[in-house]
Amino acid sequence: MFFTGLSAFPLTPFHDAGIDEDGFVALVRRLATRGVDSITALGSTGSYAYLTREERRRIAELAVRNAGEVPVVVGIGALRTSHVLERLEDAQTAGVAGVLLAPVTYQALTDEDVFGLFEDVAAASSLPVVLYDNPGTTHVTFTDELYAAIAALPRIASIKIPGVPVDPEAARARIAHLRTILPDDVTIGVSGDAFGAAGLGAGCDAWYSVIAGTVPEPALAILRAARAGDTADATLRSERLQPLWDLFARYGSLRVTAAIAEHLGLVTRSCLPLPIRGLDDAARRDVASVVGTLGLAA
Amino acid sequence: MFFTGLSAFPLTPFHDAGIDEDGFVALVRRLATRGVDSITALGSTGSYAYLTREERRRIAELAVRNAGEVPVVVGIGALRTSHVLERLEDAQTAGVAGVLLAPVTYQALTDEDVFGLFEDVAAASSLPVVLYDNPGTTHVTFTDELYAAIAALPRIASIKIPGVPVDPEAARARIAHLRTILPDDVTIGVSGDAFGAAGLGAGCDAWYSVIAGTVPEPALAILRAARAGDTADATLRSERLQPLWDLFARYGSLRVTAAIAEHLGLVTRSCLPLPIRGLDDAARRDVASVVGTLGLAA
Repeated sequence: MFFTGLSAFPLTPFHDAGIDEDGFVALVRRLATRGVDSITALGSTGSYAYLTREERRRIAELAVRNAGEVPVVVGIGALRTSHVLERLEDAQTAGVAGVLLAPVTYQALTDEDVFGLFEDVAAASSLPVVLYDNPGTTHVTFTDELYAAIAALPRIASIKIPGVPVDPEAARARIAHLRTILPDDVTIGVSGDAFGAAGLGAGCDAWYSVIAGTVPEPALAILRAARAGDTADATLRSERLQPLWDLFARYGSLRVTAAIAEHLGLVTRSCLPLPIRGLDDAARRDVASVVGTLGLAA
Repeated sequence: MFFTGLSAFPLTPFHDAGIDEDGFVALVRRLATRGVDSITALGSTGSYAYLTREERRRIAELAVRNAGEVPVVVGIGALRTSHVLERLEDAQTAGVAGVLLAPVTYQALTDEDVFGLFEDVAAASSLPVVLYDNPGTTHVTFTDELYAAIAALPRIASIKIPGVPVDPEAARARIAHLRTILPDDVTIGVSGDAFGAAGLGAGCDAWYSVIAGTVPEPALAILRAARAGDTADATLRSERLQPLWDLFARYGSLRVTAAIAEHLGLVTRSCLPLPIRGLDDAARRDVASVVGTLGLAA
């Protein structure tokens, strides 16, 4: 089962002519040799919601072709169920190992709507599906009951949760409670990179990581410490990255990660899709300073 | 200037095979003869965010072809600026009279991002543009400063605001304040149908109406009373529709309007795009009861 360990979420870099395919391939090839457990292309960090069907098909193909032995997961979310099913089909054809599905909204969805979406996708999928809970972008609030109902569907393999409680005891209790309502074979992955070490320490099986898609080493070091049972070391390593988490909290992880990738020369400026303008020059100086202080390297 | 009076927002009905073009044409033809001041296709009620570029081009063409002398406006919103500009181009080619633009989001946008989007569209547009402020679907909060900055751009012709304060004096003060920060030639249109009479009474130039796209008569009666200066009659007519506004508040105007259109036989069930499942049978009975009590007729 590959929905464990560290899943790295690469950017889908843009340039004037659209998708910067060479830039994307270079990001994936770097990740393929660094020891991450999976690569999730077309996550929120991969700007899936902004891409056409054709662009998404192309990115899925490029990810599979350049990830070596590392399993590739792709996001298939879209506003309309029929479009989600098309993207699922394209992902299957591209040869990915799994798919990630967030209930993207324009009109607010009821719990029945959200369940129906996952039911339709689970019925159509030949691949394992990750339930992607990202309230900051979807504005959907999952209840535990909805988690449990969706996780009981066939093909649902993992839940990507948005963080854990700050208090370690409360975090452990939260994950333990989720274990009681989820099937045994459904893994729990933490997201929100500032919660990575805490989530793993609380018993999460996976860390779905934004920063690992661009700068994997610090996240891999946290994962190794957590896997060795050295929660203190994992926590210390995460605390050392606090200036980075502060930038994420202030500007959002996507804009900061894009600025890091641009600063390190991995992609060209400006790599985000308009209307997202990316960080201004003052914020970029803050980012460059943190990259230097923390020794984040390409 | 046609961004005044009653603008009717028709549904874009779906059926199993995709868009129900015949159903859409029938809705537009009905509206063309009822006396509305404009028809806004591909608004939120028209499910624009769920349609492909090709479907939106087709709906724009059908709207123009079947609206008679009534000016047609279409929504051009999309997550990515380049897609908004494509839809603008398609709308212009289709021969619409104006376009409606909401800052659709997946990643949260900064004020600079939102301004940049409108700046890019205003620069490219040969048509008047309505700034569409719909925080319930876009999760964007417009400040007055942002209204003023965007309204000062060329081509910005109207602002669609989400309701007015309940207190009539406060509503008048709100619209009067907006007048001081907006150019004289930018009209103000109220939305949120429960606020239609109050908004017109408070000095709004237009009512951007969901219900008028399916059942125009009660909205037209309110508009006529307001135009004649008979605020008491407009208010009374709106108060009579309170059971309808209650349904809108409970289930959302889109789901209720779709259920009304299905109940009246204007479109086939289920006319909303999945994953939006529409109302359940119990709620549909409530809708049918209100349609009967209020005498809402096709």
